[in-house]
Amino acid sequence: MAATHLYLTGIKPTGDFHLGNYIGAIRPALEAARSTRTAYFLADYHALNTVKDADELRHSIRSGAATWLACGLDPERTLFYRQSDVPEIFELTTVLSAMTPKGLMNRAHAYKAARDRNHEAGNTELDSGVNMGLFNYPILMAADILAMEATHVPVGRDQSQHLEYTADIAGYFNHRYGNGYTFPIPKGVIDDSDASILPGTDGRKMSKSYDNHIPLFLPQKKLRKAINKIPTDSTPVEEPKDPDVSVPFQLLTHFASQDRTAEVRKRLEAGGMGWGDLKKELFEAVDAVLAPQRERYEELMADPAQIDRILADGVEPARERARATLSRVRAAIGVG
Amino acid sequence: MAATHLYLTGIKPTGDFHLGNYIGAIRPALEAARSTRTAYFLADYHALNTVKDADELRHSIRSGAATWLACGLDPERTLFYRQSDVPEIFELTTVLSAMTPKGLMNRAHAYKAARDRNHEAGNTELDSGVNMGLFNYPILMAADILAMEATHVPVGRDQSQHLEYTADIAGYFNHRYGNGYTFPIPKGVIDDSDASILPGTDGRKMSKSYDNHIPLFLPQKKLRKAINKIPTDSTPVEEPKDPDVSVPFQLLTHFASQDRTAEVRKRLEAGGMGWGDLKKELFEAVDAVLAPQRERYEELMADPAQIDRILADGVEPARERARATLSRVRAAIGVG
Repeated sequence: MAATHLYLTGIKPTGDFHLGNYIGAIRPALEAARSTRTAYFLADYHALNTVKDADELRHSIRSGAATWLACGLDPERTLFYRQSDVPEIFELTTVLSAMTPKGLMNRAHAYKAARDRNHEAGNTELDSGVNMGLFNYPILMAADILAMEATHVPVGRDQSQHLEYTADIAGYFNHRYGNGYTFPIPKGVIDDSDASILPGTDGRKMSKSYDNHIPLFLPQKKLRKAINKIPTDSTPVEEPKDPDVSVPFQLLTHFASQDRTAEVRKRLEAGGMGWGDLKKELFEAVDAVLAPQRERYEELMADPAQIDRILADGVEPARERARATLSRVRAAIGVG
Repeated sequence: MAATHLYLTGIKPTGDFHLGNYIGAIRPALEAARSTRTAYFLADYHALNTVKDADELRHSIRSGAATWLACGLDPERTLFYRQSDVPEIFELTTVLSAMTPKGLMNRAHAYKAARDRNHEAGNTELDSGVNMGLFNYPILMAADILAMEATHVPVGRDQSQHLEYTADIAGYFNHRYGNGYTFPIPKGVIDDSDASILPGTDGRKMSKSYDNHIPLFLPQKKLRKAINKIPTDSTPVEEPKDPDVSVPFQLLTHFASQDRTAEVRKRLEAGGMGWGDLKKELFEAVDAVLAPQRERYEELMADPAQIDRILADGVEPARERARATLSRVRAAIGVG
């Protein structure tokens, strides 16, 4: 069965998004959706591994959905659904578990990182704090992808193992049951262009774990404040500055037009433009992009029923696809 | 939400049943079904951990269903279904995984036994041959039980850990989400009366792993032959014999009436009854019980569509119950 092209990505709905997520994940995914068949889903059962507060999880799911919708996700164009609305994924997880050697999971990065943290903390019980959701994570992720017969999955530079695991797990199945059904092996789409990596306020990649991030939908005043707080050196206004080592300028390149960026570059290099001016430029550029999206986000969050309706519309098309896969899988293993 | 009484048991459909399964599990379960609300299910996704041949699994599922039906399971009285027909169980498995510490799974008997076997075989890769289905087994089992809100589960003498794990996992959930939903904690029903333990042909408990078993639905001739092959000593016919150390007599007590058993006991103790006579008695007693069941079993196996129809009838009532549980669970965790 030849699989048609499908580009799939999971959205982990934990906490709020920041500018780095927008540039690194949301914007390129929405870009891809213009020319490619896409499926984007809220991975709420992945989030459950860490979020054990019902209200927080419910808020995170809605906030995640509202963020992507506000940024321009078009549910008419992209299959947009919640993982927890597609029960076929969990049945497929059970099937795949039976094919997956435990040794593979022992070597998974996220699990090993948790053990390393225990080790470094002097905890000899290396599995301390590790729940089975974390340990099973790669299998659930494989099921997310394989249930939809996704052919392309964007992966971060440091996340290629995830997709290798999905390919391995699909391979175990295909090897045993290939006469009955064969999963298409998804390809990783690695976007490691500089265009997709936004620096944080300290110049390293923007990330919540570095605490160098600027939240995506800050109210204007707070956004201005956050931008003003980006550290800069004490070069006087009149002196020439090197834009390529300036964090605010790097940020600007992601939000302002090329013309505008070129103009600011000139002014910085010529001298006479201070950091304050640059930050004002940056604020205006960011706000120009995000103000309408922020407004749409606030509207959606004020009307959760609207979000829920949009997500409800995704259930049947997503399940239809997953159901088709699962019924072939069930027949192949002798359960259907 | 007060849970009503429900007695649940899983049937692992791997290979064919033997007389020990009949006496130890099937007969008492059918006995219980006369006075108690019962739910018996074919655990086909547990079987998938070991059975990777589609035809074999399909046959095992049908054979398991036909065996229980032939022995007298009444689908009007007992909720009878296949695990794989209740997708809510697999979603619940995913939820419970997020609550279950990996340390608990590390200590599970079935997993540790697999590691011990590797160790004894000199294999330093202790997880060799262990698949994630085996490792996750206790979570899937907890979901089997908790999805149905079962209150009572029969457990073998050596299987109490399984149910303790279910209670532990339910406890993690209840502790965190008790304000939203609470799983009833199922009680283990341990039947360790001698009535439920059938000796095998070598006097140890009848078990496939000891290779001392007699298949349940052997054709008459083969049944007679299997009984004739039970080892006995060379005490001459005319000498008195001790029934309490005689395997055929022990087997007889499970199949013949009390009166008949008492009469045979007398004849053995008095002398004049040889092992051949005793085995003839045993064959007749076993065949009297099993002949009509064997006939029904053959009928069902000759008409798989009939089995499938009966199993199809169980889908909705089983799902209805599981769906009710899952919707409360989803609301409690913030996904519903």
